[in-house]
Amino acid sequence: MTRRLFELVGADPARRFSPACWRSRMALAHKGLDAESVPWRFTEADAIAFAGSTTVPVLVDGDAVVADSWRIAEYLERAYPDRPALFGGAQAELRFLAAWTDTVLNPAILRFILTDVFALLRPSEQPYFRESRERRFGTTLEAVVADREVRLPGFRALIEPLRVTLRAQPFLAGDAPAYADHIVFGSFQWARCTSPFPLLEPDDPVALWRGRMLDLHGGLARRAPGHPC
Amino acid sequence: MTRRLFELVGADPARRFSPACWRSRMALAHKGLDAESVPWRFTEADAIAFAGSTTVPVLVDGDAVVADSWRIAEYLERAYPDRPALFGGAQAELRFLAAWTDTVLNPAILRFILTDVFALLRPSEQPYFRESRERRFGTTLEAVVADREVRLPGFRALIEPLRVTLRAQPFLAGDAPAYADHIVFGSFQWARCTSPFPLLEPDDPVALWRGRMLDLHGGLARRAPGHPC
Repeated sequence: MTRRLFELVGADPARRFSPACWRSRMALAHKGLDAESVPWRFTEADAIAFAGSTTVPVLVDGDAVVADSWRIAEYLERAYPDRPALFGGAQAELRFLAAWTDTVLNPAILRFILTDVFALLRPSEQPYFRESRERRFGTTLEAVVADREVRLPGFRALIEPLRVTLRAQPFLAGDAPAYADHIVFGSFQWARCTSPFPLLEPDDPVALWRGRMLDLHGGLARRAPGHPC
Repeated sequence: MTRRLFELVGADPARRFSPACWRSRMALAHKGLDAESVPWRFTEADAIAFAGSTTVPVLVDGDAVVADSWRIAEYLERAYPDRPALFGGAQAELRFLAAWTDTVLNPAILRFILTDVFALLRPSEQPYFRESRERRFGTTLEAVVADREVRLPGFRALIEPLRVTLRAQPFLAGDAPAYADHIVFGSFQWARCTSPFPLLEPDDPVALWRGRMLDLHGGLARRAPGHPC
């Protein structure tokens, strides 16, 4: 197989947990495309330098090398136009959803799972992770997550726009899942693959949607190493 | 002209300020459609009872009667398919943007403009408005807005997803404005038509986008009674 996706892992190469990598993995599955998973770790800059990127996902598809989940989705839509559409006519309109996910949802989730992510890393990577994240947060990893039970109602309020949307339709893309769903699902799958902390009530419309996403493509995301939810 | 749009006003029938009504007004202009404006006030339930609605906008277009800005946009897209598209292929994907605008942006803006909206109403409407809003907020209108200077940085942080999107493309719908833009513009136009309070720095990408929206359709929204911004 010539198609390869570089995906973030920690000590266990089977536990892929990056939200951006999950967007691309789901986008590939949406297009019905296989891709060998190449485990990549935070400290392995050299391994993806060929792609001109310092972050994953990186997709290698024959002669094409594409970094960044948004660009990968654009590439897949362009290269495989006869497969199910990721964007439909909504590519530009999805910029806002991606921006909300990147700037609101992901930072909020990280404050619940930070120590759990740390625990999954190789000892050799942990100092980098601790130092860079503690600099960003201005406190220890442990202090960031310490009040997560208290912050949980605030998190559940923060995702109200998802809940309102998913009361109106089964998927963020409408009647069937598409890239709108993959954008946001990546974040919940990141939490699921790293942390046992229950972000959602089981009957939350967002949790029910997450369940539908976990079932897609023969349970691709549900079978991935993670915590039941 | 048989086409009429019921739009919220206060004491001055020319000062139309509802965010939802502005969505519909911009959607009509987008389709190149005129509509007589019928001023409607909070206390005039009887005047729109024929539409089976207690809120505006209500559109009457020949035999069609449509309430609710989302349904009006759907109606216009269906009834005038040969005019410029409002949704393109993005209708389902825009549910999230509308939900964010309704549940995050509008409540946040209201806390800056509440007393200014109150001041625009007829004396006969003011008791209804004060009582219903003070019940909702659990305090006086004046107390809600009292700390608005302090809350301003928080508001500007809250709209970061808009800013990120508008750094990537000139309109929320991409290269040209469409219903994605009308959804959010309605909220900023609501603020502009009611309050002199400067929500945005002039060089904020969101302010620059608002300027482009104010210029559309020969300055339709800029000419509307409001505060310069």
